[in-house]
Amino acid sequence: MRMAAMADLNSPYLIYLGDTQIQELAKTGLGLVYWRPERCLGQLREESCVADLGIPDMSIAKAVAAGARTLVLGTAFIGGQMPPEWIDRIVEALEAGMDVASGLHTPLSSFPAIAKAVRTTGGTTHDVRLAKGTFPVASGLPRSGQRLLALGTDCAVGKKYAALAIHREMVAQGMDATFRATGQTGVLIDGKGICVDAIVSDFISGAVEQLTPAAEATHWDVIEGQGALIHPAYAGVSLGLLHGAQPTAFVVCHEDGREELSAFHSHKTASIAEIIDLTVLLSRRVAPEIRCGGICLNTSKLNETDARDRLADLSVEHGVPACDPVRFGVSEIVSNLR
Amino acid sequence: MRMAAMADLNSPYLIYLGDTQIQELAKTGLGLVYWRPERCLGQLREESCVADLGIPDMSIAKAVAAGARTLVLGTAFIGGQMPPEWIDRIVEALEAGMDVASGLHTPLSSFPAIAKAVRTTGGTTHDVRLAKGTFPVASGLPRSGQRLLALGTDCAVGKKYAALAIHREMVAQGMDATFRATGQTGVLIDGKGICVDAIVSDFISGAVEQLTPAAEATHWDVIEGQGALIHPAYAGVSLGLLHGAQPTAFVVCHEDGREELSAFHSHKTASIAEIIDLTVLLSRRVAPEIRCGGICLNTSKLNETDARDRLADLSVEHGVPACDPVRFGVSEIVSNLR
Repeated sequence: MRMAAMADLNSPYLIYLGDTQIQELAKTGLGLVYWRPERCLGQLREESCVADLGIPDMSIAKAVAAGARTLVLGTAFIGGQMPPEWIDRIVEALEAGMDVASGLHTPLSSFPAIAKAVRTTGGTTHDVRLAKGTFPVASGLPRSGQRLLALGTDCAVGKKYAALAIHREMVAQGMDATFRATGQTGVLIDGKGICVDAIVSDFISGAVEQLTPAAEATHWDVIEGQGALIHPAYAGVSLGLLHGAQPTAFVVCHEDGREELSAFHSHKTASIAEIIDLTVLLSRRVAPEIRCGGICLNTSKLNETDARDRLADLSVEHGVPACDPVRFGVSEIVSNLR
Repeated sequence: MRMAAMADLNSPYLIYLGDTQIQELAKTGLGLVYWRPERCLGQLREESCVADLGIPDMSIAKAVAAGARTLVLGTAFIGGQMPPEWIDRIVEALEAGMDVASGLHTPLSSFPAIAKAVRTTGGTTHDVRLAKGTFPVASGLPRSGQRLLALGTDCAVGKKYAALAIHREMVAQGMDATFRATGQTGVLIDGKGICVDAIVSDFISGAVEQLTPAAEATHWDVIEGQGALIHPAYAGVSLGLLHGAQPTAFVVCHEDGREELSAFHSHKTASIAEIIDLTVLLSRRVAPEIRCGGICLNTSKLNETDARDRLADLSVEHGVPACDPVRFGVSEIVSNLR
């Protein structure tokens, strides 16, 4: 019962894209194929679909015959209304014996046809964005194991990507590590985790303590961060996550050149130094040994020479490795953490 | 619709105490009678009840005849099981045309007899601890009006009492002020407010923005605080509340002599200076003009001379008035805020 409210999806997946017209909107599906290709059996696309994950197209029947266990909604629909073909495909998947997983705000069971199919088939729908059940209040007690948290100077600066990249590099270097998803895309990619921003405020640190339990002294939990400690809307989520995580190390993620908070244009982004200082200050009671393990910078607006210069400057300025996880990988950060 | 999810109770109240055996357990009822006597028509006590609010005993029929609109559960029951007489009284009140308000974790509608009475009478139950509906994400935009937030060095150090006392003193001094409740006891006392610890994390700052809207430049919202910025379990709530409140001023509440966090004994309480510094630091982006308006100290463990000496020392140390709201009032803090 300890992890009763944590999402846990059965794989392999059939990824549903509907008739997604723009490749980038299929970001959950793209993330799944990039980070967990071994779990992705195929994609299901309607005739007019433009997005393409580059994996085999399959009908539900064919996917089930090949062993698919869960239909994952790989793209967000626009405008708030679930198109009829989505509902039909979800019902079809349930009737074929599959589970269905969604990162949408609206619970799948709120659609009468889907609710009926769940009742008649006994199938399972996973609304990973909606917390199920309850978590305990945090204890704040010290626990064993190494934990790395990805923090950011804003939302959407690559915290999830950084955490997944660091986890992959740790495994590649032979380290014992687990990725811990804390947002809907991360949970769908990894098949498990907790959407912490959907947890009732009183229990957010307690939920993160459950997500990242005590472990062997050399084991690393690599934890996706959320929001930013300076964010006018989400700082409570970020601090509750930081306290629950009790990190032994952290990285700070930033997008080079971003000066205003995404979708909060009257607010300035934090500096990297501000997030380092705040993280150390706000952790000192629950994680007094915490240290900054590196900086992850999105350099996509710079040419390669400028990007390398910028990373070198940041590394000197802050005394830790600075990497662009997408462009150059994170091996220096992982070596620094070992 | 703007305040759709905010509790708003009809008064006057009949306060129900069941058979409460210990006076202190009736703390919601005691708070109601102390802070809002004009709303408290009477109390309803079972034969074996020991607790006494010092207001007229009334049956439900007599209270309704006298104009009572809401039965408020004035005490917490012990052990988690609602005793049968509580359920019977709640049903009786609904059938007599009253609303029922509860600060319990369990929704009243989860009891079949109460759910049935709601259906048949069309009555209303208020579970103030459970958020109804949704709140928007915070905007973080500046807004007019004065706002004071009560912060603490721990939970249960008198933040609610301090805010209610400051509000009362402001009104006595002819200032335009509104108390803003953020916890279940505060909401039941004031009849309105939002239990912020029950809000989904993503929306906590947005809920507080709604609770404390833009106002005249000289109007004060006096906002009950929750948790503590250093608390291992509740700091996320405290920071989300701070950001949503955008306070122009704050007071820090502390219990003299408390060294460990209440119910978290391996953690030290914060110092007053630590909370002042953290509050100013964490507010600088949403409330750059914030200032500490005073210190509220619970001196109940000191004799009067020692209490006055301790308050004088604190006032010198921090450069702001220091008061014991229960023992000596808060007039100096309010004068300092004017």
